[in-house]
Amino acid sequence: MTIAFKWEKIREEQPLIHHITNYVTVTDCANITLACGASPVMAHAPEEVSEMVAHSQALVLNIGTLSQSLIESMIRAAKTANQKQVPIVLDPVGVGATTFRLQTVQELLRQVQFTVIRGNASEIATLCGFREGKGVDAIDTELKQFIPQVRKLAKQLQTVIAVSGEVDYITDGTQEAQITNGTELLTKVTGTGCMTTALIGCCLGAGIPPFTSAITSLLVMGLVGEWAEGLVEADNVGSFRTYLFDGFAKMNNQWLQKKGKVYVTAG
Amino acid sequence: MTIAFKWEKIREEQPLIHHITNYVTVTDCANITLACGASPVMAHAPEEVSEMVAHSQALVLNIGTLSQSLIESMIRAAKTANQKQVPIVLDPVGVGATTFRLQTVQELLRQVQFTVIRGNASEIATLCGFREGKGVDAIDTELKQFIPQVRKLAKQLQTVIAVSGEVDYITDGTQEAQITNGTELLTKVTGTGCMTTALIGCCLGAGIPPFTSAITSLLVMGLVGEWAEGLVEADNVGSFRTYLFDGFAKMNNQWLQKKGKVYVTAG
Amino acid sequence: MTIAFKWEKIREEQPLIHHITNYVTVTDCANITLACGASPVMAHAPEEVSEMVAHSQALVLNIGTLSQSLIESMIRAAKTANQKQVPIVLDPVGVGATTFRLQTVQELLRQVQFTVIRGNASEIATLCGFREGKGVDAIDTELKQFIPQVRKLAKQLQTVIAVSGEVDYITDGTQEAQITNGTELLTKVTGTGCMTTALIGCCLGAGIPPFTSAITSLLVMGLVGEWAEGLVEADNVGSFRTYLFDGFAKMNNQWLQKKGKVYVTAG
Repeated sequence: MTIAFKWEKIREEQPLIHHITNYVTVTDCANITLACGASPVMAHAPEEVSEMVAHSQALVLNIGTLSQSLIESMIRAAKTANQKQVPIVLDPVGVGATTFRLQTVQELLRQVQFTVIRGNASEIATLCGFREGKGVDAIDTELKQFIPQVRKLAKQLQTVIAVSGEVDYITDGTQEAQITNGTELLTKVTGTGCMTTALIGCCLGAGIPPFTSAITSLLVMGLVGEWAEGLVEADNVGSFRTYLFDGFAKMNNQWLQKKGKVYVTAG
Repeated sequence: MTIAFKWEKIREEQPLIHHITNYVTVTDCANITLACGASPVMAHAPEEVSEMVAHSQALVLNIGTLSQSLIESMIRAAKTANQKQVPIVLDPVGVGATTFRLQTVQELLRQVQFTVIRGNASEIATLCGFREGKGVDAIDTELKQFIPQVRKLAKQLQTVIAVSGEVDYITDGTQEAQITNGTELLTKVTGTGCMTTALIGCCLGAGIPPFTSAITSLLVMGLVGEWAEGLVEADNVGSFRTYLFDGFAKMNNQWLQKKGKVYVTAG
Repeated sequence: MTIAFKWEKIREEQPLIHHITNYVTVTDCANITLACGASPVMAHAPEEVSEMVAHSQALVLNIGTLSQSLIESMIRAAKTANQKQVPIVLDPVGVGATTFRLQTVQELLRQVQFTVIRGNASEIATLCGFREGKGVDAIDTELKQFIPQVRKLAKQLQTVIAVSGEVDYITDGTQEAQITNGTELLTKVTGTGCMTTALIGCCLGAGIPPFTSAITSLLVMGLVGEWAEGLVEADNVGSFRTYLFDGFAKMNNQWLQKKGKVYVTAG
């Protein structure tokens, strides 16, 4: 099965993407949203999140720097989004690291219908019931061990689950995709995970179907990472990070089509 | 009428600029303040804002990521600033997007005397009573349609109003200036609006008169944008953003005088 | 006395570093932590800080954008860290600028045993009882005038105190070190102080002794600053900032050994 990428729809539709996110990578998330042609808005006050999300085309929730008041705002925004059929993507950053994060995500999953959930292997393993928990960058978890559980969870939650890693894995519970593009350098700068989630928000906001949105976004991050790596000496993470944003702005359907190593299995 | 630019006063005076601002572009605002020779301090706790602003040379208020507790701190700081004759610049980010933002700005305008207010056309249109509201990057609003209202509002509030856009517009209600420098690339990275407002704070803090402060700052952003654009391939927004900061640090009066396309009409 | 640098232990141990810090430089602190081979986690909610710090190898506290609720979280995290023998480094950003900051730091010093405290001359002078207070970048304070007081304070608090400046000064109350590497450009970008503190956290987390951790971190910042300065035209602070991160990722023991200008006096 081949994918008809619709990346350029973002630039055409210019969707407004509402982010309720962490303060570590928020600037990068705003910049990637702009770089790919969408329009970012960050707003977290309970007084305004419902109104803001109501005229947005997608909502991005990211628990990277969580607080009690932020949870309230996330639930309020997400409920409005569900009512208005605004798609929502969740990034459960570091969900295995503390009980507070885990309980928050469980509560969100109970109250909100997510369109896509994206995390690293450790975070998604936690959602599947295998709690790990070494900060937010756990890279040791072997994805292969729990693919059946991911598939089951996606089906149960009626959502798309995307796992970033050396090999990316995406499933809606029936269909599956694996992506082998990428570079380890992407794990050496903060925010590449959060930005991938922001990209999913941009794709969803442009009307791209959830499964394709997730595949497209993880592929874009991998391809741009490979491209930026080609421009720097090993370990030049400062320059690499700058080039990433050059790459996001250059991205197009042809690049995805030509360089993407995506293996899709229909259900 | 020609303008005698005093940009270098910032480097001579090294004013302390107190920012109460959003967490999306705060790093960029600190860096531009340093790049132009001033000293930034970010502080938002109600317990300290009055004391902080009392030994600052200017106050920058930016509602980009507003919350109830931030409003309280803004009003407290601004009242002290007004008492101590510390100039204040307001950036009403996304004021048209939600009732919460609009009411907050209306409350600020009631309680505080601002020296300068800077926004994009959509934001300033909202302040003039034409409410729009597509996030924070609305670029469609035609400035020409409501210039008389901007002039009237500036006179009524006894402030300088600066509107960033393809053509920038600045008025104190009597005098007017238009600036045609700039590049569309400035709209492709987050924070260029907030940074322009931060620049106004730096100019005000160095003792440059309000109308000239606003003109100088919008011109600096336009000129540095043009210069940085010349260094990059189209769409290389990552590199462009890096070069912007190189440019801010290089800026001088001669550059402004030589390359500025500023048209001033005395009242 | 010569120092056996153990910088590469960070890359070997990959410690998890828990930061409770400000929102101005937090992205830079996450990126420097990753660049030197450690793993950052930012978490500030009172509900989770104890659990987070309990499985971290070091805690970094930075009061750059302080609030009442943050103080509570800092104390809670620090008490757990003290119990679990997790080393803690404090950055008293702008402590002289307001009573709120000064009282907070005094309270922290009463309740918490810090492993290292790092600040600029003005901040450390304030801790020694000489209150100054021009924002967070006070550079005028003459270190020489109060070295005896710093030594005394270090002994009294049983901590290492590190003072960043044109000449860096580090003491544990008995031993002393001075470092003459560095460049003024490091004062022209925001976050270099906070990042130095983050580096100390990384060293401590890798098991490097406190006095050596402080020396190593201030030296790394100075050396990388010199290296990055060599790559840019004067005043190109945007590019300089990008190259800093390239340099942090390249750092190794040999570089420290070969280029470091460190003068240690045993007690």
